[in-house]
Amino acid sequence: MPMIDPKLDLVLERIVSVPPELVWAAWTEPEHLVKWFTPVPWTTVECEIDLRPGGIFRTVMRSPEGQDFPNLGCYLEIVTHRRLVWTDVLEPGFRPSRHDPGPHCPFRITAALSLLPHGRGTKYTALVMHKDEASRAHHEAMGFHEGWGTALDQLVAYVESPASGLLPAPAG
Amino acid sequence: MPMIDPKLDLVLERIVSVPPELVWAAWTEPEHLVKWFTPVPWTTVECEIDLRPGGIFRTVMRSPEGQDFPNLGCYLEIVTHRRLVWTDVLEPGFRPSRHDPGPHCPFRITAALSLLPHGRGTKYTALVMHKDEASRAHHEAMGFHEGWGTALDQLVAYVESPASGLLPAPAG
Repeated sequence: MPMIDPKLDLVLERIVSVPPELVWAAWTEPEHLVKWFTPVPWTTVECEIDLRPGGIFRTVMRSPEGQDFPNLGCYLEIVTHRRLVWTDVLEPGFRPSRHDPGPHCPFRITAALSLLPHGRGTKYTALVMHKDEASRAHHEAMGFHEGWGTALDQLVAYVESPASGLLPAPAG
Repeated sequence: MPMIDPKLDLVLERIVSVPPELVWAAWTEPEHLVKWFTPVPWTTVECEIDLRPGGIFRTVMRSPEGQDFPNLGCYLEIVTHRRLVWTDVLEPGFRPSRHDPGPHCPFRITAALSLLPHGRGTKYTALVMHKDEASRAHHEAMGFHEGWGTALDQLVAYVESPASGLLPAPAG
């Protein structure tokens, strides 16, 4: 894991009831990701994933008013079922990003997701790195913990739902 | 290799007389890198390398007037003897860069070095990616081709010199 700098980073750490393999599927397969990624009533209307270093990670989030917010970045590190790192500082192919994230998101991030087996579930750690204290403070004030926490609740509920097809059907 | 975008990228492609393994050593071992990295009369007075994705790549270049120009970035992709990608958009650990590169270098880059065996030498391709056309134009006007070309000449001369200890001593 990268070194955590409490002045620059935001961290969400939780134990969740679904195993790392299914959290991984929810984060890395577009058809699953769109089902939980944005706290309701926001929706994720597009998702593109090329799961290799330098590969695209693109989403479009839609506000309840119908405004679209695109995000474009790339993956940096991929350890299947255990560790996923991506950034919006670089575009696919590692090119320095030309996109202005816009006033809704006046900073850029690198995010590192760590998944460790914990009983039948997962110790889930999301580390979000910022370049300076102002960016971190802004992100926290925007509701980082509520936003990422609610999305994680939605992830777990989705994975556990029959609709996801991710959990085996109960016996009998 | 990443896609080359002629509007955004600068490329130096050359055939050089030393094999990929020795070009690789010159680029990835600080004690070698400082010997050729900056066109004379500039010097490279510090170099720190941690050769793994997210690992540090830091140099300090000194002008003939004695002014120091630090560069801090990290590696993105490492294929031993073949491919080396790094950026100054991210700091070590993949954190978004907090350092203002300053007026001497008002843009950030991702660089991808490709080394292919070519006879007893190397087909050497350095691809430097910028976020926009203005950055590319500025870098070109600063003397990208002369600078990277002269540095490469210095690399080859250094590798071929007895001082490097990289080539086997001639027989007899």
